[in-house]
Amino acid sequence: MANSPSGDSVTDRIVRILETFTPTRTVQTASDIGRRAGLPPSTAHRVVGDLVDAGLLDRDPEGRVRVGLRLWELATRSSHALRVRQAALPAMERVQARVREHTQLAILEQDEALFLERLSHPQAGANITRIAGRLPLHAASSGLVLLAFGGPELQERILAGPLRRVSPSTPTDPGALRRTLAEVRRLGHAIAPGYIEEVSTGVAVPVRDRAGRAIAALSVVLPREAPTAPAVEELRRAARDVETALAAPA
Amino acid sequence: MANSPSGDSVTDRIVRILETFTPTRTVQTASDIGRRAGLPPSTAHRVVGDLVDAGLLDRDPEGRVRVGLRLWELATRSSHALRVRQAALPAMERVQARVREHTQLAILEQDEALFLERLSHPQAGANITRIAGRLPLHAASSGLVLLAFGGPELQERILAGPLRRVSPSTPTDPGALRRTLAEVRRLGHAIAPGYIEEVSTGVAVPVRDRAGRAIAALSVVLPREAPTAPAVEELRRAARDVETALAAPA
Repeated sequence: MANSPSGDSVTDRIVRILETFTPTRTVQTASDIGRRAGLPPSTAHRVVGDLVDAGLLDRDPEGRVRVGLRLWELATRSSHALRVRQAALPAMERVQARVREHTQLAILEQDEALFLERLSHPQAGANITRIAGRLPLHAASSGLVLLAFGGPELQERILAGPLRRVSPSTPTDPGALRRTLAEVRRLGHAIAPGYIEEVSTGVAVPVRDRAGRAIAALSVVLPREAPTAPAVEELRRAARDVETALAAPA
Repeated sequence: MANSPSGDSVTDRIVRILETFTPTRTVQTASDIGRRAGLPPSTAHRVVGDLVDAGLLDRDPEGRVRVGLRLWELATRSSHALRVRQAALPAMERVQARVREHTQLAILEQDEALFLERLSHPQAGANITRIAGRLPLHAASSGLVLLAFGGPELQERILAGPLRRVSPSTPTDPGALRRTLAEVRRLGHAIAPGYIEEVSTGVAVPVRDRAGRAIAALSVVLPREAPTAPAVEELRRAARDVETALAAPA
C-alpha cells in the first residue's frame, strides 16, 4: 500500500526529498525538489505537502520550503550524535582555546567521516568541513584515524577503492594508504598535509572504546606549514577526557 | 495510495514513530514503538523496517532501533537551527567563560521555546534544559523574551491559556503575565526566579531582527539568589554580536 508501481516506498521518496537539501541549498520550490529527487511533479507536490503538514518541512510565504525545525528536533533529541558531541564539547573548547584553529569531531557513517561538530576560531584559516558534512575516509586526518582504528574489514573495503582525489596531495594509491594506516596505528595520530586543501594540514587522534576501536575522531586544521606536535598533544589529552566522559553513565 | 484506511498518511506514521524517541528513551523495539505510536504491530514493524532500510533508524544486533545518524545529518546540514546556532556559538562561549553557568540559545517553535544549544559549566547548578528540548513560553526566561518581542498575535494566543504551572513560582495568571511581558519589553531582558525550578533563576535577552522582533533568546541559568545584573550585561553584549553575525551574508 505504501509502495508506488515503481516499487519505491514512501520512506524512500521522503529520503530522496530530504537529500535535495544541502548546506548551500536550504530553500527550494516543490518543483525543484521533484526534479532533483527524480520524482514526478505530482508526487513531489503531494509528498512535500504531507511533509509540510507534518512539520518536517516549513513553507515560507512565497511557497518555497526548507527543512523544518521539527525534523531537526526529532532527529536530534534522542540521537547518538548528540550524546557523543555533548561528551566531547568541553574538551573541544579547551583544544580550540589553546590551538586557536578549527577543532572538529567526526564519526564513521556509511564508510565516510561525518562531522558532528566544528568550533572555529575567528582568525583560523581555510576549512572545507561543515557540521553534518562528510569527507572521504582516506582524504581527511579524521578519516585516517577512523580507518586505522576501525578494524580490518572496513580498511579492506576502503583500500579496494575507488580512492577519490580531493586535492593533488590526496593519497590515492592503496599500497601507500596501507602503509600510512600502519603508521597511524603505530603513532596513535594522523597527519594529513594538503590532503583536502593544499593550504591546510589536518591533525587527528582517535577517541577509542575499551576494545581500542575508534568511536570518533578529534581533529584540528592547521595552516600547511605549522608545527603539528603541540596540536597532537592537545588532541591526545582531549581524547582521553572524551573517553572518560563517554564511559560515565548518561 | 500512501494513505491507510484510517486516513493517516505514511508521513504521519513516520512522525508518530519518531516522536516515541526522547532524550531518555533512545533505544526501543519495533513492538514498543508501535504501542507508543498507537500503530498496529504489523504496521509498526513494516514502517520501522522501511526506516531502517532508508538509514533513518539504526537497528542494533539485538534488533532494537534508535534514531539514525543519517536522519540527524539530513535534518541538520541545511537547517535554520544550525545557521542560528553557528552564528550564536562564539558569543555563547564568551558568556559561558565569564558567567560560568549554563548558557542557552532558544527559538520559537510551535508556541514553545525550543532549545538549539546549551553550554554547561562543570560546576554549574541544576538545569532542566536539553538541546532539542522545549519549555513553555510563559515559564522560562527565554520564552518570556520570545513572547514579549514576538508580536501581539502570539502574545494573545499564549495569554488565552492554558498557562501550565511548572514550579510553584511559575506565573499562571494572565494579568500578571501581561504586566511581566510589558516589563520585559521596557527593560529589554527577562528574569524568571524559580519559574522552572525553585533553586534557579533564568535570565534572558532577545536576539532581534531589524524590525525588533525576537529571532532567538540567549539565556543563562543562575543559582536562585545570585545577582543578575552582570549576566544581563554579558547577554546583551552577546545578543548584539549574534545580531551582527546573523546580518552578515551566509
